[in-house]
Amino acid sequence: MQETAFNVVFQGLNPTTGMPTRAYSAASSEDVSEAAERACRAFRRHPEATVRADCLSTAAAKLDAHADEILTVAMEETGLAEPRLRAELSRTTGTLRLFAALILEGSWVEAVIDHGDPSRKPLPRPDLRRMLVPLGPVAVFGASNFPLAYAVAGGDTASALAAGCPVIVKGHSAHPGTGELVAGLIAKAVREAKMPEGFFAFLPAGGSRDVEVGVEIVKHARVRAVGFTGSVPGGTALVRIAGERPEPIPVFAEMGSVNPVFVLPGAIEKDAAEVAAGLVASATNSGGQMCTCPGLIFVMNSPQAERMITAMREAFGQAARPTLLGPRTRDNYFRRLREIGRTPGVCLAIGSLDTPQDARISAIPTMLEVSYQDFKSAENLSDECFGPETIVVRCGILDDLIEAARAMRGSLTATLLASDSDSPAARRLLPELQDRAGRLIVNGVPTGVEVAAAMVHSGPFPACSRADTTAVGPLAIRRWCRPVCFQNVPDSLLPEELREANRLGISRVVDGARIEARAAR
Amino acid sequence: MQETAFNVVFQGLNPTTGMPTRAYSAASSEDVSEAAERACRAFRRHPEATVRADCLSTAAAKLDAHADEILTVAMEETGLAEPRLRAELSRTTGTLRLFAALILEGSWVEAVIDHGDPSRKPLPRPDLRRMLVPLGPVAVFGASNFPLAYAVAGGDTASALAAGCPVIVKGHSAHPGTGELVAGLIAKAVREAKMPEGFFAFLPAGGSRDVEVGVEIVKHARVRAVGFTGSVPGGTALVRIAGERPEPIPVFAEMGSVNPVFVLPGAIEKDAAEVAAGLVASATNSGGQMCTCPGLIFVMNSPQAERMITAMREAFGQAARPTLLGPRTRDNYFRRLREIGRTPGVCLAIGSLDTPQDARISAIPTMLEVSYQDFKSAENLSDECFGPETIVVRCGILDDLIEAARAMRGSLTATLLASDSDSPAARRLLPELQDRAGRLIVNGVPTGVEVAAAMVHSGPFPACSRADTTAVGPLAIRRWCRPVCFQNVPDSLLPEELREANRLGISRVVDGARIEARAAR
Repeated sequence: MQETAFNVVFQGLNPTTGMPTRAYSAASSEDVSEAAERACRAFRRHPEATVRADCLSTAAAKLDAHADEILTVAMEETGLAEPRLRAELSRTTGTLRLFAALILEGSWVEAVIDHGDPSRKPLPRPDLRRMLVPLGPVAVFGASNFPLAYAVAGGDTASALAAGCPVIVKGHSAHPGTGELVAGLIAKAVREAKMPEGFFAFLPAGGSRDVEVGVEIVKHARVRAVGFTGSVPGGTALVRIAGERPEPIPVFAEMGSVNPVFVLPGAIEKDAAEVAAGLVASATNSGGQMCTCPGLIFVMNSPQAERMITAMREAFGQAARPTLLGPRTRDNYFRRLREIGRTPGVCLAIGSLDTPQDARISAIPTMLEVSYQDFKSAENLSDECFGPETIVVRCGILDDLIEAARAMRGSLTATLLASDSDSPAARRLLPELQDRAGRLIVNGVPTGVEVAAAMVHSGPFPACSRADTTAVGPLAIRRWCRPVCFQNVPDSLLPEELREANRLGISRVVDGARIEARAAR
Repeated sequence: MQETAFNVVFQGLNPTTGMPTRAYSAASSEDVSEAAERACRAFRRHPEATVRADCLSTAAAKLDAHADEILTVAMEETGLAEPRLRAELSRTTGTLRLFAALILEGSWVEAVIDHGDPSRKPLPRPDLRRMLVPLGPVAVFGASNFPLAYAVAGGDTASALAAGCPVIVKGHSAHPGTGELVAGLIAKAVREAKMPEGFFAFLPAGGSRDVEVGVEIVKHARVRAVGFTGSVPGGTALVRIAGERPEPIPVFAEMGSVNPVFVLPGAIEKDAAEVAAGLVASATNSGGQMCTCPGLIFVMNSPQAERMITAMREAFGQAARPTLLGPRTRDNYFRRLREIGRTPGVCLAIGSLDTPQDARISAIPTMLEVSYQDFKSAENLSDECFGPETIVVRCGILDDLIEAARAMRGSLTATLLASDSDSPAARRLLPELQDRAGRLIVNGVPTGVEVAAAMVHSGPFPACSRADTTAVGPLAIRRWCRPVCFQNVPDSLLPEELREANRLGISRVVDGARIEARAAR
């Protein structure tokens, strides 16, 4: 038995100084259980959309009001720069407001009505109505690299609360102070909006309880779904645990993505240096610690390609040495980087495979090169290396690129750089990339995930455990729901969204025809 | 190594006579591998919607044209009655035509377009477009109880082909002749419609190769998703195998459902006998071998309840002894029935726990009774018993029903019988039922699954492995797809559905507003 009569204490860490920040107390098994039971009771009270929207907007306002305080702690704990974190906070509050607006509008439930036909022979046709309903309490595991937008108040929490699912956040041990601060503000918003008590809970985790708190949440019978952003081993472990429960539950895990870039000759015909600069900026953005940083660059041999590679080398050489998120990120990064570095045929173009020995937790931006033949023979050059690193793969002919695209592991993004003259090749490559990624970018960089209706932040395994969903944009709400059909249910017993009168004025499909939303309220 | 140089031969069986039909040859490991590789090559040729629709319609026409031949073999192999099978065939061809119409109309891809804004500060907003794309080759495992509608040409095959996914069917060993016949007709339709070769494959399975053929298909790297209809152990085994692959794939398994019915006092105030007749007809429909047969009837003690229970007993006593689908169905049924029969507090009301000893594979319709107190103390009375059996649970007060609803395992359906006078109780019960089932029925019976847009044939585990989808109705196509986002992709390289001109005239959401479908073609 785990000793949890006294809460385990763990230390926060400042990666820029390598010094501890302050002590935090991890949740006990009793805390986990209590949070889950309270969440279940809160779920049964089914707060209305207006109440949930009010809670989300209030939370956004509180985060904005405490921006400076939040940024100070987040900068201290993550080593990320202030402008980056300010943009991330604005994206976080934007997402909270997006979901508030989505549920106030109401059409997101995908209401479909098929009226019955009592006179049909041989049997009457029943009246059937369908809509999405919330699953129940959701466990949220935030990421190390987005202490705000994929964390306590991030997209998973916002979309789950919007759907009507109580949220239990497992705190991230790399930024416990940021988590505590943001969680306190959300808890206040929950109270002020008069949401049922227990609809939101924050469980700090760290030290010897870091993994256990998470495992206990996912195993708890009251929890009905899991949102996770993190590593492939972490995500797949949660998928396995969730699948072995007496009642298995879905895990929406966003994990590892190598985000390959395919460079066709026309794209670097004119300005190879500019292309190189864009790629290196994307690869080293936030210390290369973004889920969408480009990790593999496939390019066909040519003088222009040499110019691009040379310019990339120079840009990598000039890139600042970033502070990494913490010791775990650093250790994983260097383990993986050295694995790549000792692969036959791989050369270090610039940078270093060695862990810097000063107090600051950091890494030197690093570029490696390999021929397509060696890349193909290697075991696992296609796996993510999370940090300021990129591998350039020199290819001979277009068929190498096609073959590489087909062999690619699932990825959040795939990028094609091409000019008009490359169209025939682009036409061959794009369907292969479409088959292996959640987002295709032409003549851009993969970093910079727009929060928009058409966004897909997902992809085949190992990018995600569930490629049929997205972690960004309004569609993310669908993860926390399932459709329910109401057969011959009297109007007065139906949810408002499915009643004949459509008092909410939402968009519905009625007898096969879409009836558009109208301003009913 | 499995010896598959010579194909394993297995016997078909006629459950009505208990005699063998004829010999069939199971697919070898090489057959599995070849089918998967061909399916992958066929997938890469991406046949257009018009071609796929043509294939589906042609298949429907061929099934209709060969109806008598198909029904003769199916009756012989399953013991199901001719009218039931004729209705099932008509539903099968109806589903094939439904998906043909769906993809010809084209809006099912859920196209969303967010135009870019090059002048946005600090960064330009990219042009983002999203739609559903097919996953790749799909493995289909049909059910024993629906040799046509959930089988070779059933809803899984129809929806997967419609989505653009090649289909590999694992033949069911209980009706190999029906499978072979239907598969031959679909293969012809695939050829006539000029679909890529290998877009459909049928792999007979039986004897010592029954399980192995299925496992080999699910493990094959080229297979990208699985549709399964069958038992909980079978479905959960496939989910596990699919999850342990180097690249895990989704399994849409429809498994065991107890389909509880909750009877409120008002519903039997007037005519308890009529209610009883409806419930028994539903419970013994097709030998009780339907996924939606009611297995648990919760009723509050009262004189009317006694009248209903007495009438149910009589109706069960008068119900014909059905032929079961085969020896495996029979053995599983009696194993489970005897497990129920020896549970403390459970009484046999009418019927028999004993396997009939004649050549015909059959069972006597059986009703059991138990008090709610004993039901609550029992281990697993909530699990499905697949066959002509129902348990009546006598409850004391409304809170027993609420508690039972909350403790219910996931189910395809939950039924509420109530009159207007029961409304306060119904209002308390319905949210609990909604939380545990995919379809709620008021004052009806759970059997009879309408093929309609608003239908949901799904539910929380163990009813299904994926409660967020449905196996019936047009929404079933979503299972075989995932969304892909196209960022700044030139119009000429976009799929037709996302091009600016909307030549297909499909319904799309453009910059937040829905643009309705128009007759473009």
